[in-house]
Amino acid sequence: MPRPVNHEFWMAQALRLARKGMYSTHPNPRVGCVIVKDAKLVSQGWHEFTGGPHAEINAIEKNQVPPGSDFYTTLEPCSHHGKTPPCVDALIKLKPRRVVVAMQDPNPLVAGAGIGKLEANGIKVVQGVLESEARLLNPGFISRLEKGRPFVRLKMAISLDGRTALKSGESRWITGKSARLDVQRLRARSSAILTSAKTVMDDNPSLNLRVSKSDLDQNVELRHPVRVILDAELRLTGKEKIFGTDGEIWIYTLNSSPFEIERLVAAGAQVSILDDSGSGNINLKKLMSHLAKREINEVHTECGQTLAGALVQQGLVDEIIIYMAPKLLGSRSIGAFDLGQISRISESVKCNIEQVRKIDEDIRLTLSLA
Amino acid sequence: MPRPVNHEFWMAQALRLARKGMYSTHPNPRVGCVIVKDAKLVSQGWHEFTGGPHAEINAIEKNQVPPGSDFYTTLEPCSHHGKTPPCVDALIKLKPRRVVVAMQDPNPLVAGAGIGKLEANGIKVVQGVLESEARLLNPGFISRLEKGRPFVRLKMAISLDGRTALKSGESRWITGKSARLDVQRLRARSSAILTSAKTVMDDNPSLNLRVSKSDLDQNVELRHPVRVILDAELRLTGKEKIFGTDGEIWIYTLNSSPFEIERLVAAGAQVSILDDSGSGNINLKKLMSHLAKREINEVHTECGQTLAGALVQQGLVDEIIIYMAPKLLGSRSIGAFDLGQISRISESVKCNIEQVRKIDEDIRLTLSLA
Repeated sequence: MPRPVNHEFWMAQALRLARKGMYSTHPNPRVGCVIVKDAKLVSQGWHEFTGGPHAEINAIEKNQVPPGSDFYTTLEPCSHHGKTPPCVDALIKLKPRRVVVAMQDPNPLVAGAGIGKLEANGIKVVQGVLESEARLLNPGFISRLEKGRPFVRLKMAISLDGRTALKSGESRWITGKSARLDVQRLRARSSAILTSAKTVMDDNPSLNLRVSKSDLDQNVELRHPVRVILDAELRLTGKEKIFGTDGEIWIYTLNSSPFEIERLVAAGAQVSILDDSGSGNINLKKLMSHLAKREINEVHTECGQTLAGALVQQGLVDEIIIYMAPKLLGSRSIGAFDLGQISRISESVKCNIEQVRKIDEDIRLTLSLA
Repeated sequence: MPRPVNHEFWMAQALRLARKGMYSTHPNPRVGCVIVKDAKLVSQGWHEFTGGPHAEINAIEKNQVPPGSDFYTTLEPCSHHGKTPPCVDALIKLKPRRVVVAMQDPNPLVAGAGIGKLEANGIKVVQGVLESEARLLNPGFISRLEKGRPFVRLKMAISLDGRTALKSGESRWITGKSARLDVQRLRARSSAILTSAKTVMDDNPSLNLRVSKSDLDQNVELRHPVRVILDAELRLTGKEKIFGTDGEIWIYTLNSSPFEIERLVAAGAQVSILDDSGSGNINLKKLMSHLAKREINEVHTECGQTLAGALVQQGLVDEIIIYMAPKLLGSRSIGAFDLGQISRISESVKCNIEQVRKIDEDIRLTLSLA
């Protein structure tokens, strides 16, 4: 059987390469590039780590690229001077026949500029090949540039009857070892881990990465996601376990008291004061917009039912990952989402089930929110 | 490729036939029979409906059975005079070479008697072929005879966060149409549907069959499962919707007041008074033993969290079927299992996930209890 040679075939390879940057390109997008001539692979590359060369440059530098080649890139080549010179210029010099692009730059201000420059130089550009797959690769980067907020993923470990913990507070461990390793992968791909001061005080978690680069099959050292803690009243002491672990801590508060701020800064945290518009609660939309400005792409949320319910009800959650353990904890144990008093089933929060997987004895549900 | 001719091949066919009796043999078991000679099918049959001929007789009567045939039966042929004469005698007359049996009669008092009689007449008997599959076919019949209680299946329709209804009581409909049709299949295969007076009063359900024989691909008219209602204090009025629907109603109570009993008997129910041993609650173990004596094989339970929790905690549930809707109802809505105060995760009720299926937009979880 002849090898199927078509745009989708080579773009799928570029997407596979892009995925290798899953844990190491923050705040940049994951991008892959494949160079093809006469239906044969000439070279390939991906954006390997923050500050390193872009995917196209890595591919160009690995092998001699003959004129008339086809480039497949999962994201429109950049046309601006950032940490590295623009990729389109490097491409134009090589006189490619065609550049196939999965998706345009999500930044509305520059979208299409790279493509325009290629076309202006007589290079044919094909757009939209495996576009939705390419978008799935960078949900946070895209959300940040298109909507001005990060992609928010909420993780919950619950029993079959929807309980996250006992009344006593005990919650370790509801799910099994494999599910917990899976959570580490979600943390590792995220720019930030979001939680509440209440969770930090109640459970005293570290919320850090407990996997190494080899666990995730990576060459590049793993970056610790920023831990973002909502502490409206600055109740944290700075002595909680989380302060003694690697990685940045950003605290968002409504409390402007220098004394409390100083205590937490001394413990290594960065403290930002958000305007509450008089509500007494941290404005979650403002928080998200603030995080996007600080180049946070994907937010991984691990929190209790109050923050989880508020995020969901304010439409700020894009994906929920539920790890469901084959246990019943009973109706007197702690619930997962406080949505206030719902008076009609039609007022419930609707989700779409994107994926259901067994993970050893547990089940993982991937849900998107409308 | 030659057709694989072996015991498992023919027994699998006998099991397929037996399944045709899924909805129509109560209180008898579902049984199939295949007759084979020289690796060719001679005849086949199954127990079609209560009071009708057994599987072996249906197979024998359909075609001429030559001497030296092999019989495959999913259950040991009966050796006693019941509603029909013993099947072993009919078999012996036909001088078969071999009888292959998936499982012995689960009644410990007669188990092996049929097989013994066949062997005493010089017929070779092979036992245990696809035995576990055969046991799955008749969980209720087997449980009733081996353990003296029915097989109890508990159905729950819940949200992703483990809620069965809103605080207002609204619970229609959490799950979709396909899931609700699936519940009808579970009801139809059961000898009885168990619920509490509280559920009857709160939700006013009919708990009847709302499918026809053609919906379930059946030739035989569907039987209405007995509705078993636990009403310790006889709070039912006899005017609830359930009393106006087809099928028997058995009420179990602790209340021996002739006045209240008469009211419910007049409404068409049979009322049984159970001894509470002074606890004030209906003794669920005694109830189950009573139901087994009344030839109830499979009990389908649809109830609220109190009865569900009590059944689970007393080890009286064999299988839980959860229909999970992709909705969040929030922590202030009603839970699924009241297990009292659990103080350690290790005290939670452990289940095994036997199957996970998407049913349109919902998920069905099949759980067995250790």
